[in-house]
Amino acid sequence: MINITLPDGSVKQFEKNSTAMDVAKNISEGLARNVLSAQFNGSTIETKTPLKEDGSLTLYTWNDLEGKKAFWHSSAHILAQSILFFYPNAKLTIGPAIENGFYYDVDFEEESISEADFKKIEDKMLEFARQKFEFEMRSVSKADALSYYRTNNNVFKVELIENLEDGDITFCDHSDFTDLCRGGHIPNTGFIKAAKILSVAGAYWRGDEKNKQLTRVYGITFPKQKELTEYLALLEEAKKRDHRKLGKELELFAFSNKVGQGLPLWLPKGAALRERLENFLKKAQKKAGYEMVITPHIGQKELYVTSGHYAKYGADSFQPIHTPKDEEEFLLKPMNCPHHCEIYNNKPYSYKDLPKRFAEFGTVYRYEQSGELHGLTRVRGFTQDDAHIFCTPEQLIQEFQEVINLVLYVFNSLGFENFTAQISLRDPNNKEKYIGSDENWEKAERAIIEATKEQGMETVIEYGEAAFYGPKLDFMVKDVLGRSWQLGTIQVDYNLPERFDLTYKGADNQLHRPVMIHRAPFGSMERFIAILIEHTGGNFPLWLMPEQAIILPISEKYQNYSEKVLNLLENYEIRALVDNRNEKVGRKIRDAEMSKIPFMLIIGENEANEGTVSVRKHGEGDLGTFSVEQFAKIVQDEIDKTLKQF
Amino acid sequence: MINITLPDGSVKQFEKNSTAMDVAKNISEGLARNVLSAQFNGSTIETKTPLKEDGSLTLYTWNDLEGKKAFWHSSAHILAQSILFFYPNAKLTIGPAIENGFYYDVDFEEESISEADFKKIEDKMLEFARQKFEFEMRSVSKADALSYYRTNNNVFKVELIENLEDGDITFCDHSDFTDLCRGGHIPNTGFIKAAKILSVAGAYWRGDEKNKQLTRVYGITFPKQKELTEYLALLEEAKKRDHRKLGKELELFAFSNKVGQGLPLWLPKGAALRERLENFLKKAQKKAGYEMVITPHIGQKELYVTSGHYAKYGADSFQPIHTPKDEEEFLLKPMNCPHHCEIYNNKPYSYKDLPKRFAEFGTVYRYEQSGELHGLTRVRGFTQDDAHIFCTPEQLIQEFQEVINLVLYVFNSLGFENFTAQISLRDPNNKEKYIGSDENWEKAERAIIEATKEQGMETVIEYGEAAFYGPKLDFMVKDVLGRSWQLGTIQVDYNLPERFDLTYKGADNQLHRPVMIHRAPFGSMERFIAILIEHTGGNFPLWLMPEQAIILPISEKYQNYSEKVLNLLENYEIRALVDNRNEKVGRKIRDAEMSKIPFMLIIGENEANEGTVSVRKHGEGDLGTFSVEQFAKIVQDEIDKTLKQF
Repeated sequence: MINITLPDGSVKQFEKNSTAMDVAKNISEGLARNVLSAQFNGSTIETKTPLKEDGSLTLYTWNDLEGKKAFWHSSAHILAQSILFFYPNAKLTIGPAIENGFYYDVDFEEESISEADFKKIEDKMLEFARQKFEFEMRSVSKADALSYYRTNNNVFKVELIENLEDGDITFCDHSDFTDLCRGGHIPNTGFIKAAKILSVAGAYWRGDEKNKQLTRVYGITFPKQKELTEYLALLEEAKKRDHRKLGKELELFAFSNKVGQGLPLWLPKGAALRERLENFLKKAQKKAGYEMVITPHIGQKELYVTSGHYAKYGADSFQPIHTPKDEEEFLLKPMNCPHHCEIYNNKPYSYKDLPKRFAEFGTVYRYEQSGELHGLTRVRGFTQDDAHIFCTPEQLIQEFQEVINLVLYVFNSLGFENFTAQISLRDPNNKEKYIGSDENWEKAERAIIEATKEQGMETVIEYGEAAFYGPKLDFMVKDVLGRSWQLGTIQVDYNLPERFDLTYKGADNQLHRPVMIHRAPFGSMERFIAILIEHTGGNFPLWLMPEQAIILPISEKYQNYSEKVLNLLENYEIRALVDNRNEKVGRKIRDAEMSKIPFMLIIGENEANEGTVSVRKHGEGDLGTFSVEQFAKIVQDEIDKTLKQF
Repeated sequence: MINITLPDGSVKQFEKNSTAMDVAKNISEGLARNVLSAQFNGSTIETKTPLKEDGSLTLYTWNDLEGKKAFWHSSAHILAQSILFFYPNAKLTIGPAIENGFYYDVDFEEESISEADFKKIEDKMLEFARQKFEFEMRSVSKADALSYYRTNNNVFKVELIENLEDGDITFCDHSDFTDLCRGGHIPNTGFIKAAKILSVAGAYWRGDEKNKQLTRVYGITFPKQKELTEYLALLEEAKKRDHRKLGKELELFAFSNKVGQGLPLWLPKGAALRERLENFLKKAQKKAGYEMVITPHIGQKELYVTSGHYAKYGADSFQPIHTPKDEEEFLLKPMNCPHHCEIYNNKPYSYKDLPKRFAEFGTVYRYEQSGELHGLTRVRGFTQDDAHIFCTPEQLIQEFQEVINLVLYVFNSLGFENFTAQISLRDPNNKEKYIGSDENWEKAERAIIEATKEQGMETVIEYGEAAFYGPKLDFMVKDVLGRSWQLGTIQVDYNLPERFDLTYKGADNQLHRPVMIHRAPFGSMERFIAILIEHTGGNFPLWLMPEQAIILPISEKYQNYSEKVLNLLENYEIRALVDNRNEKVGRKIRDAEMSKIPFMLIIGENEANEGTVSVRKHGEGDLGTFSVEQFAKIVQDEIDKTLKQF
């Protein structure tokens, strides 16, 4: 008999060589019907792997990330089997599960695959799935594994196997299909009830553009047809809300091939929207005691040698900028912290002067490979809503909590109500990836855990996700489509103060080291606005809207009065424009609805005579007739509803 | 007889071989006593040079820049003579007149010179001057000239002469002193009545740091002792107002050796002051129909090849930024125009859409040698208050005039009432220094001349001062110390629109080229603020002041009421602070006067009881007792006096 510990801490006895599925059955028939995969003592196993010793067992269903991973990993086998059915000469390479579905990189050699082929592959996948094939893992010697793929003429798998240890190599068989595989499958293929090939794209073997280009086939599968239908509807909605598409339509930003990829140009409406967001945060920051500073976008290489950035990222970054006669070397700044440390260092402080809170909308530049760039979410230049708080160790928890309050205020004001807070700590097995002493790391990690606990926040802990100079609290928001985005971050840092030799004079008249908090509630203006566009579908909160009202004269006769209304609205700081086109008012209303402008002010004979406007709200319809002053109050009230004072 | 045309257009007959001095005497004895130098047919001559043909003659006195130039050039001879008197082994190199005085670069070999030596040199200069030596120009053959300096063992003059054409070489003698010299002297040394050695500094021979380091001796001379006294007082005042000194004292900006020379860090008070200036201009620009945009601080090298910047400045600039695998090359942006052209190019325009006015506070980076850097006036990174107007050729004059109005509004609002407008045109003899066709240049130059004429502006024309892509109107302001600074600039450009292939659809449905106006009223934020600091001595206009009021409780008892006043002032958007130190109020007032804060609010028993403040104005004294609301009105009224609406 062996003792099996379950996640709730209970221990049950089973016969040796029982399987995860046996345990599931023992718990309940329902669980046994739904279990997709399992981990034993922290390692992924098959649900039919015999358990030979005492240990902890976790069972996963479709509701768990691990369950989905096994589902999609298994689906990748079915995809590969179906591809080989239609393209017997295709060479398989690797095919992992990903966040949403899976892919397989395939060398189709002379053949090619296009959208027209997707249907037949999906049908074949489902045909295989219905046969409820079980996945059989077996160990293979390195010699046999190499011989198998050499016979198959597959240089990719041969290359993979050459890098594996003899004794560690396993194959997985199902039906007539065999693949090099580490395991982690669902009980049988019958769970897969819906399948979709989503797209194909080029991908270099091992991600290196010097290698052969393969075809990456993206797919997704579900245990129910309904779930696929919903997922595809979500994809469709996400496509409509794609910030690259809406950013163009709303004339918020653009890219230019001449300026360079990943370097956004903010068009007038986007720049104004961004300025409103910045002013909103500036106002809250002022109340919270921050002071704005401005620093240059370059710094001497030495600055980043001191900070540790150069040793860590130098080789993968934009390379140093030389002067004409090469006397000096500069770097584009990848972060604002070294500059802010030098501002701190500009004068001596006493403990009574602290905390100092230096804030800057600082534009930084980080090299990304061109294939990695994506709209405003993955760029080469972006503006952090950055600040660095320099405080005494005694002030740290209090300061950290105040930053949490600021971040939550920002999220609430912008309609991100659904978020999780992740404490990102050092990878304890990889300490050499980080700078600074164990003692400082422990102090910093403890501070974050304590501050969030005192705040009563729910958090999850992730190891290995810290910044290289310190641990952090990351906020992941969920948008209306249920997608998670990492936004704000708060980081505790005992290390840069040492590297920059920052000091303050304590009550004891001795010099001490301050602690630094790095923080950015938005994260970056570019990324935040991209997510805000997708979250709102371009229907921004009223206070952010590029245009808040459009004036629609029903004929040319009312143009003068319309211009007068426009001027009055300007006095109320309401952003408006007049639709002076020679079009019927019905057409003007339809176009205004399309353009997402929140209020339409219709002007005809009555309005011009009485000095009023007829107000129509986007997506809602007629609100009635008001004086301009009354309308201004409607606008202000709606703004006040979402935009509270900090 | 020869005909001599005078600047007023009158023509007088003189005997051949008459001199400029003869002409002066003929005009008036007074003029003859004051004439210092002359130009004949555009070339500088001596006042005793015989005139051998008809021509135009201009006579210069101390009131003319050319007169001062001859005065200081002549003084440099006397300085050199005096140096050789005390240091017979010193080697002279070059010694030109400069804006204020003159210098001579000297190789003192083993000896050195310090402030302790200045007095004896000044005395010797005046002793020589009193002897009324005349300057005698003579032609020398190249061989004789070389032989003279080789005998003197002066390798510098030998090098200079080697680069001259035989037949073009002249020496100048006075007393026992001889120098290689092109001419342009005052009638005799007796005009020099006051002399001062200002400083010594290191300077490389020919400005190249690979060459020997020489000693640059700066001096100044005047025709009256009183003028020297006044000038030294001005220098003293300028030293007090030096923006580097005040910038540090007022905590506006700092430099860090680690960040790099010429890269300013804006401290909280400076960043806030700069933001107020930017907001002031933004507001006026909004009224004038500008739209703000934001562009990155780098661009692909190709962008600057297209604009022509790379060919023109590439070699002397910050060198290209490479990517890790060298796939792409970027440059720090030296100007915002290429980026704004790409924003224009983002969508098609019709003539009805123009003008488009894109504005950006755009930070640009230009390499300057470290020896050239100076505080905020000569930096390596600076923020232009930049804008580019894209208009039809028909709109150009009108747009140009509107920009002039904006620039004048800016100057008036900031207390720069004394300025001159300079039309900077192409050097007609050096057309290859500029890009673009003759036709476009002529159109652009004509437009500026016409716009300023229609505006009724007084202007001076300078050839050779245009930007490489177009002519410009430069504004030079005079500060309270009488020093001239170049600030705002407005430029007309037909060339970049061609290089970037910018178009709009005309009323004729054909594609046309827009014209571009580049403009920056401040010039750069850094330079403008430096000049504003020196102009105001840190007593900025009230609306710009970092702190507008300081609250002075006469004892600890009134701290609570003081904090209440502070909060009330915040509601009125008045920037204030409380002096809570445990000091006598007399001391607090004295310290507040030193710190230049415009208003002191003294709080005692009566004020606390009655809810008032006793107001004292910086440099003026007691204004009386007011409610906080009344005081807020005093502040607002004073702001409204200087800061008009655009």
